[in-house]
Amino acid sequence: MKRRHFLTAGGAAAVAASTVYSPNVIASNRRFRLEMPTSWPAALENLYGTAEYFARRIGEMTDGDVEVRTYPGGDQIGPLEVYGAVASGAFPCCHTAPYYFIGESPAHGFFTAIPFGMTLDEQNAWMMAGGGQELWDELNAKDNMIAFPGGNTSAQTGGWFNKRIESPDDLRGLRMRFPGHGGRVMAKAGVNIQQLPGGEVYTAMDRGALDAAEWVGPADDKTLAMHEVAQYYYMPSWAEPSAMLGFYFNLDTWNEFPADIQAQIKACSHEANMWMAAQYLATNPVALETLQDEHGIEVLDFPESVMDAFREGAREVHEEDMNDSDYARIHGEWEAFMKKVRGWNERTTYQYQSYIFDR
Amino acid sequence: MKRRHFLTAGGAAAVAASTVYSPNVIASNRRFRLEMPTSWPAALENLYGTAEYFARRIGEMTDGDVEVRTYPGGDQIGPLEVYGAVASGAFPCCHTAPYYFIGESPAHGFFTAIPFGMTLDEQNAWMMAGGGQELWDELNAKDNMIAFPGGNTSAQTGGWFNKRIESPDDLRGLRMRFPGHGGRVMAKAGVNIQQLPGGEVYTAMDRGALDAAEWVGPADDKTLAMHEVAQYYYMPSWAEPSAMLGFYFNLDTWNEFPADIQAQIKACSHEANMWMAAQYLATNPVALETLQDEHGIEVLDFPESVMDAFREGAREVHEEDMNDSDYARIHGEWEAFMKKVRGWNERTTYQYQSYIFDR
Repeated sequence: MKRRHFLTAGGAAAVAASTVYSPNVIASNRRFRLEMPTSWPAALENLYGTAEYFARRIGEMTDGDVEVRTYPGGDQIGPLEVYGAVASGAFPCCHTAPYYFIGESPAHGFFTAIPFGMTLDEQNAWMMAGGGQELWDELNAKDNMIAFPGGNTSAQTGGWFNKRIESPDDLRGLRMRFPGHGGRVMAKAGVNIQQLPGGEVYTAMDRGALDAAEWVGPADDKTLAMHEVAQYYYMPSWAEPSAMLGFYFNLDTWNEFPADIQAQIKACSHEANMWMAAQYLATNPVALETLQDEHGIEVLDFPESVMDAFREGAREVHEEDMNDSDYARIHGEWEAFMKKVRGWNERTTYQYQSYIFDR
Repeated sequence: MKRRHFLTAGGAAAVAASTVYSPNVIASNRRFRLEMPTSWPAALENLYGTAEYFARRIGEMTDGDVEVRTYPGGDQIGPLEVYGAVASGAFPCCHTAPYYFIGESPAHGFFTAIPFGMTLDEQNAWMMAGGGQELWDELNAKDNMIAFPGGNTSAQTGGWFNKRIESPDDLRGLRMRFPGHGGRVMAKAGVNIQQLPGGEVYTAMDRGALDAAEWVGPADDKTLAMHEVAQYYYMPSWAEPSAMLGFYFNLDTWNEFPADIQAQIKACSHEANMWMAAQYLATNPVALETLQDEHGIEVLDFPESVMDAFREGAREVHEEDMNDSDYARIHGEWEAFMKKVRGWNERTTYQYQSYIFDR
C-alpha cells in the first residue's frame, strides 16, 4: 500500500484516487474524500457500524464535502496494520482500538482499557474534562497522528472458555485470544496468549487452535457465533470495564482541513463515541438472553480467587510498564483522576444501584 | 417579550435584533444569529457553561455562520419561562431542564429524571439507541419545538437539610425546594414543596423561608454557597440518579436551517451533552472534599426507612401520572428499556465495581 489515499484539490498536487474509489474529480479546496480502513469485520454492526455512522454523519454535517469511505479489516490492509498505515500517511485515517498498539508503547492502553481501570462514564470524563485528550494528543503526535474518541463498547465480558474456571489453576496452559494489557495479565496467570483479529477468532476456536477467547460482549460475540465453539461465558470483564476506540488521522492530513471541518470532525467523533456505547447497552442485554435461552450458554462469574489472581497479574504488568516513560507519566494523571471519580461514583451511582438491586 | 429573536436573511422578513445584540447585518441565507435564554445563573460553570460551550463550538463548526448568544436565567426572561418563550417563537432556542415543565405534561420528566430511574449511561443509551429521542420529538412537536440532549449532571445528591433525617417522620412539615417528580414524591412524604429557580435558593434558605433544598451536586452547590445555609448533605439522589437537560428549538426556526446546519447542531448538542457530564464527574469529587474538609459539612446517607418512603411515594406519583396519555405511552417504552439495560449493568459494571469497592 504505497498510494496516499487522501485527495484534496488545494492545488495541482491532487493524487490519483484508489481504483476502488472514484470519481477523482474534486470540486473545491473544501472537498475531501477520505479512505478509512478499520480493524473490524463488516458483520459487526456496533463496531464497523460506528465507522459507517461517522461516515454518514460527517457527510450530512458537511453537505457531502467530507466523504469518508470505510473498509472492513483486511479489505485494503490488515486489521491490525491500520495504525502504521495512518502514521506513514498510506491512509489518511482509520478506526481502531488504541490498545492494539501497546507494542509501540504500553501507554496506548490508557485510551482503550487498563485492567481494573475506568468504567464508561469515568473514561469519557477523563478524556473530556480530566486531561486525557491532551495526553493522547502528545502520545499520538510522536507518530504524526491525532485521534478522537471513536466509540466505547462499555463494559465487556470476561471471555469464552471451553471449560469451567474454578481456581487460578484452571487457567494454566489455556490457549486464549486476549488483546491489550489484559492478555499480558492472563499470561502472568499461565495462559498462552495469541493475538488475532476479531474476524479470525471463531475459526481458531473451531479448529481447536484456541481453548478460550475474549472478544467484546454478547451482541458481537453472538454475531461471530462464539456460542458454537465455547460453552462457558464468564463475567465480569476485569480487563475491559469499558473499552474506548479511536478515529485516527494522519497529522499532515489533519492540518490540511480548515478549522471548521476540524471542529466538525471532533463533534462527529464525540457523537459516534456516544452512539456506540448506546448501541452496546441496548443490544447486549437482548443478545445475552438469546445466548442463554436459545443456545444454552452458561453464564458464570469468575470466583474471587481467580479475580484476585488477575488483580495480582495486573499489578505485575503495571510494574513492568512503569519503565516506559510515556506510560509512567500518563499513569500518574490517569490514576489520580480515577481515584477521585471512583470515590464519587461509589458514594452516588453505586450506592443508588445498591438500593435498587437489593430490592 | 414580543420580538422574535431569530434573524435570517432568507428574505425581506428579517426581524429587528434585540437592542442588546447587534449588528443586524446578515451576510447570507446561511448566517443565523440565535438568542438562547437559559434557566441558569451565570456563575454555574457546568450548567450555564454548557450553553456557552455549545455557543462556542457551533461557532467553530460553522466558521461563525451560526452565532449563539446565551443569557443567564432572568436576564431576558424568567429562568422557568424559557419553554413557553420558545414554544411561542418569542425566542428561537433555549437551554433548560425538561422536568421544569411537567406542568405541561408529566411525560417531560422522562427527559430529565424520574425517581428511581435511569443512570447516566442508561439515559444516554435510551436517547440514542432505545427510541427516547423519537418519543421526545413527538412530545415536543405538540408545542412546536424540537430538542436535543443538552448535558447531564450525572448523579446528583439527595439535598441539603438543616436537621438530620433519621426516619420518615423527620420529613413532615419541612419546607423544601425540589423540582420535578422528585418534589411531588417529597410532598407525598409530607414535605411542603416550593419551586424556585436555582439562583433564588440560597436567599430563601438564608432568610428562613426554606428548611431544605435539592439543587444539583457539590460543584454547583458550593458555588451557590449552600454550605453557609445548611449543615447536612444527604446521599444518594434517588430522585435524580442522572438529570438530562435540553437544547430546545422552535420548530419554525429549526425548519429554516439547511440540513447540514441541522446535522451540525445535533452533533454539537451531543458533544455538549458529554461535556457537561464530564465536567460534573471531574468537579464534584473535588468540591465534595472541600465542603467536608473546609466547611465542615456532614455528608450522610438516607436511612433505608426513608429511602423506602421515597420509593413508596414515587409509586404513588407514578400511578397518578398514568392518567396522562403521553406519560403512560412513554413510560411503557422507558421502563422496558430500563429493565433490560439495568439487568445488564448489574451483571457487568456493578459486579465489577462490587469487586473494586470491596477491596
